[in-house]
Amino acid sequence: MADPTGRPDHAFPEAQREGLYRAIFERRDVRARFRPDPIPPEVLARLLEAAHHAPSVGFMQPWDFLLIDDRAVREQVHAIFERENTKAAEAHRGERGELYRRLKLEGIRESPLNLCISCDRRRGGEHVLGRQSIVEMDLFSTCLAVQNLWLAARAEGIGVGWVSILDQDELAEVLGLPDHVYPLAYLCLGYVEAFHDQPELARAGWRQRLPLAERVHGNGWGEAADAPALFEALAAREGER
Amino acid sequence: MADPTGRPDHAFPEAQREGLYRAIFERRDVRARFRPDPIPPEVLARLLEAAHHAPSVGFMQPWDFLLIDDRAVREQVHAIFERENTKAAEAHRGERGELYRRLKLEGIRESPLNLCISCDRRRGGEHVLGRQSIVEMDLFSTCLAVQNLWLAARAEGIGVGWVSILDQDELAEVLGLPDHVYPLAYLCLGYVEAFHDQPELARAGWRQRLPLAERVHGNGWGEAADAPALFEALAAREGER
Repeated sequence: MADPTGRPDHAFPEAQREGLYRAIFERRDVRARFRPDPIPPEVLARLLEAAHHAPSVGFMQPWDFLLIDDRAVREQVHAIFERENTKAAEAHRGERGELYRRLKLEGIRESPLNLCISCDRRRGGEHVLGRQSIVEMDLFSTCLAVQNLWLAARAEGIGVGWVSILDQDELAEVLGLPDHVYPLAYLCLGYVEAFHDQPELARAGWRQRLPLAERVHGNGWGEAADAPALFEALAAREGER
Repeated sequence: MADPTGRPDHAFPEAQREGLYRAIFERRDVRARFRPDPIPPEVLARLLEAAHHAPSVGFMQPWDFLLIDDRAVREQVHAIFERENTKAAEAHRGERGELYRRLKLEGIRESPLNLCISCDRRRGGEHVLGRQSIVEMDLFSTCLAVQNLWLAARAEGIGVGWVSILDQDELAEVLGLPDHVYPLAYLCLGYVEAFHDQPELARAGWRQRLPLAERVHGNGWGEAADAPALFEALAAREGER
């Protein structure tokens, strides 16, 4: 069950595990302070390959990758953002509204590369294994690809921001997507001046991280988990962060 | 821009990057050959913390974690799977149907722990920043948490399988979820005998990995990306795997 170091079979050595956890804990949603340096092709290849190795329902691999560097296309996408964001801002009034308007929520024009990861809802035909009960499993699979890429980017020193304030129909039109292809994630990528210690919205005072222990249930919703040692471990780790 | 080793600022050292990429490339959807050993509480704490540090729209953190070890609950979930899988299998006829019926698609009863990661669609109130254009961003965020946990599990030597052949309404009822909470991912976790080199469905001859280069577009769908060095790098990496 364990090797001589006490590590369970198949577990990674310490430095490798640390690399994964660093990527998870130090990854940020980056919207500003991108550097203009282009992403070298071999690094971009690693990021795309990481995304392509995500799990997918029925091994459907519904994703495609659109590399967007054209200024005119980016200006069009930015215009969509501006329209949507003006509408969205109206929901926030008073002090909260002022804070909202000060937040920088996208890096479409200043990041060296935009990447749209789309989801082909017809890939693999009519009956994709594992998708019949939950038809959205193709979208969910594509999200897993996004997270693989996001973490790999962090390890390479590259910041990624997901721009979700976009009208998806307008975006699909700008990118010329067929009707059955959904523009799941519009990402801005580039080397950055800095990765912050905390998520941008926590730093800005918009919302704070929830206590994890309160989000853990037992065998049903709202039931206490009978796991005192787990809660001790969570409390100890919470103290560290 | 780079340290004396030539590494860009903020990039991880080699062993740490390797750990992340190993997790990404060696992660598998595991449905069989779970060992009975329980997951130690401090390891489970790391997995949950990894999930909790996923990006979420508007820092909404819509997830909850239900730890399911009760045999009776698991039998109920397994019965839901059996009913859904019988229906799903009917879509596959002839040789393909025979292959489908031979595939093992879940480890609900034999894995030491089941974990449901749910999505609270009301968390953060009516106007969540970044969610007004795409209301499903809460579900997508929860998927990112699933992938963090899946990768962390791999680094710890723990296999994870996502059971998507379930009626979500019936599952929500078994778990007592409120109406506004969606049971996004039902996962089976445990130490395993082995992680295979290839995804289970590729090994079984169900479907193979798609050539990544064919999934890369330029500034619009179907446009060639003007990136010869990228395609060279992708081809070189494809040869390695």
